[in-house]
Amino acid sequence: STTHRIAVIAGDGIGNEVMPEGIRVMEAAASKFNIPLQFDHFDFSSCDYFEKHGQMLPDDWKEQIGGHDAIYFGAVGWPDKVPDHVSLWGSLLMFRREFDQYVNIRPARLMPGVTAPVVRRDGSPRQPGEIDMVIVRENTEGEYSSIGGRMYAGTEREIVVQETVMSRIGVDRVLRHAFEVARSRPKKHLTSATKSNGIAITMPYWDERVVEMAKQYPDVKVDKFHIDILTAHFVQRPDFFDVVVGSNLFGDILSDLGPACTGTIGIAPSANLNPTRQHPSLFEPVHGSAPDIAGKGIANPIGQIWCGAMMLDHLGYRAAHDAVMQAIEAVLQPGSGGPRTPDLGGSASTADVGRAIENAL
Amino acid sequence: STTHRIAVIAGDGIGNEVMPEGIRVMEAAASKFNIPLQFDHFDFSSCDYFEKHGQMLPDDWKEQIGGHDAIYFGAVGWPDKVPDHVSLWGSLLMFRREFDQYVNIRPARLMPGVTAPVVRRDGSPRQPGEIDMVIVRENTEGEYSSIGGRMYAGTEREIVVQETVMSRIGVDRVLRHAFEVARSRPKKHLTSATKSNGIAITMPYWDERVVEMAKQYPDVKVDKFHIDILTAHFVQRPDFFDVVVGSNLFGDILSDLGPACTGTIGIAPSANLNPTRQHPSLFEPVHGSAPDIAGKGIANPIGQIWCGAMMLDHLGYRAAHDAVMQAIEAVLQPGSGGPRTPDLGGSASTADVGRAIENAL
Ligand SMILES: CC(C)[C@H](C(=O)O)[C@@H](O)C(=O)O
Ligand SMILES: CC(C)[C@H](C(=O)O)[C@@H](O)C(=O)O
Repeated sequence: STTHRIAVIAGDGIGNEVMPEGIRVMEAAASKFNIPLQFDHFDFSSCDYFEKHGQMLPDDWKEQIGGHDAIYFGAVGWPDKVPDHVSLWGSLLMFRREFDQYVNIRPARLMPGVTAPVVRRDGSPRQPGEIDMVIVRENTEGEYSSIGGRMYAGTEREIVVQETVMSRIGVDRVLRHAFEVARSRPKKHLTSATKSNGIAITMPYWDERVVEMAKQYPDVKVDKFHIDILTAHFVQRPDFFDVVVGSNLFGDILSDLGPACTGTIGIAPSANLNPTRQHPSLFEPVHGSAPDIAGKGIANPIGQIWCGAMMLDHLGYRAAHDAVMQAIEAVLQPGSGGPRTPDLGGSASTADVGRAIENAL
Repeated sequence: STTHRIAVIAGDGIGNEVMPEGIRVMEAAASKFNIPLQFDHFDFSSCDYFEKHGQMLPDDWKEQIGGHDAIYFGAVGWPDKVPDHVSLWGSLLMFRREFDQYVNIRPARLMPGVTAPVVRRDGSPRQPGEIDMVIVRENTEGEYSSIGGRMYAGTEREIVVQETVMSRIGVDRVLRHAFEVARSRPKKHLTSATKSNGIAITMPYWDERVVEMAKQYPDVKVDKFHIDILTAHFVQRPDFFDVVVGSNLFGDILSDLGPACTGTIGIAPSANLNPTRQHPSLFEPVHGSAPDIAGKGIANPIGQIWCGAMMLDHLGYRAAHDAVMQAIEAVLQPGSGGPRTPDLGGSASTADVGRAIENAL
């Protein structure tokens, strides 16, 4: 069968530490399941690259990685070197747009061996599997626009505006994807994040499209909450949720909050999908470059490895995905003696955890 | 001394149930501390009023309540009667703007007798006082703009835009207020909510103004977090925060999430302040009209009563504020035998709780 070419971009900070473990486990999965994977490494899309070249990407970045089957991504951003809005808009956010990765998928699941910081109403701990949701985020428009500017700059009258943009095409395609994900799951329950009571032009539109799309999915139970009370519900009854769909900004917030409610952002994965497969999809952990712990070799590689599992699934290898997930869960299982990085209360290194998951596989 | 005239607007749903308890306790405080309070009741700013009159407010609403010293507000909104964006923009959001209530203050404090749904890292419960923050929200501009519209309506090419607007005046005045609040508290710690890495026009401007304002407050410790990870930190380490300032939308989100982390939104208060006192300030609980429990007499009145305490403080009666707060805490204290509404695990009625607080006072 044809080789799958994976563009590897480790990026900044702990991206460089967790990526080798991700690749280690991907290679183990490839050999076990006989998957022809080829990893091509790229040094751009990092703040070090920016410091050398004055830009985040080479001019021909699209030629270099646009033909790959997927992008395996670490983390980007190092504010002391390059302001975030420069580094991110010059790389990750550009990939999302130029490769039309219009769906961002982020599972938030309470894993074995992880203590959730949110407890039940009676104070008792939540159990593995009790929180199990998928955040589906619009990834190419909405609040992340580049339209706007500043007037009377530097004066008392200064005024800054920025446009939120929602298109029928952009909203419908992510809603359709979210409904499909909901339909594929046992609970078939979709929650829409809105704020139509306050953001009274774009958000009522979002609500309208949800109502419209729901007509095509009578088997899916739909509800909606305003984003403010929705964040409260995530904390108070995270077990209520199944699939949650939100705009670019609301999806961003919920896909940090959801994983936070399940214990650690250090293990949450995300997939930036171009479902048409005209362009490569990009798989990145939710955690960032983490300047505070970078260089210490203690970052948790599970997010990177979990992303890898999602990538295998996307490439058509569901069994390999499941095997990697089982290996992660086996290592996390309390009493398994599996190594744990400091964020999970242990003292193991990044590589210890990567190797343990490789062995479990 | 001159009588303080309070405009009372109970509004919709449980607003009508908690308001009498708020007034009961305010009257008790007024008689105890010899405060000349006069309550004038208004039936507008409710969806029932809309059904009768086709608008949320009478034409002369400004004359009717603009001369009052404060507005004591219940809740507004009843989606089955009037769409939220109509009822809210026609009342509450209009008051905020027309009375230039540019600061929204929302304390989130873990109270005695309330179990927080967020636990410590080791799984042990958080203790009263351990979470004690104040959210300071910009209340008149930002993401809640009325600029925008729809093009190619009803077609596949449909596109909807909405402007976020930040002005130097609008941003600086709320930041100044937030810095002052931070300075007045023991920890002198101010956190700014941003999203300058994604919302790359308005939010970097917000950050700039924070840096600028911080120069005038060298005694205040300042930090900033992007809203996504900030919501995660609220769950994982709410004890870290002291004063948190955010734009209209981010403040809205954080001031539901903060109270949610302290156990219940049913007891959280908020103050919409016009610090110049040119117009009345408005005091309202964070909870809404709660159609699901309205009419049952089981809504928790503590948010309404706590708001009343903030109102007394705003009118210059600090001692009365403190006494009301102590009465609330006395009734909540475990083992006090104080009545509890169902949201706090009890079976008491709204009036039971109101009377108990009145007696404790
Ligand atoms: C009802 C709604 C428009 C309002 C807001 O978003 O401001 C409410 O959530 C609040 O926080 O007071
Ligand atoms: C780094 C940032 C621009 C990005 C986003 O907001 O999309 C990140 O938070 C994410 O969720 O992938």
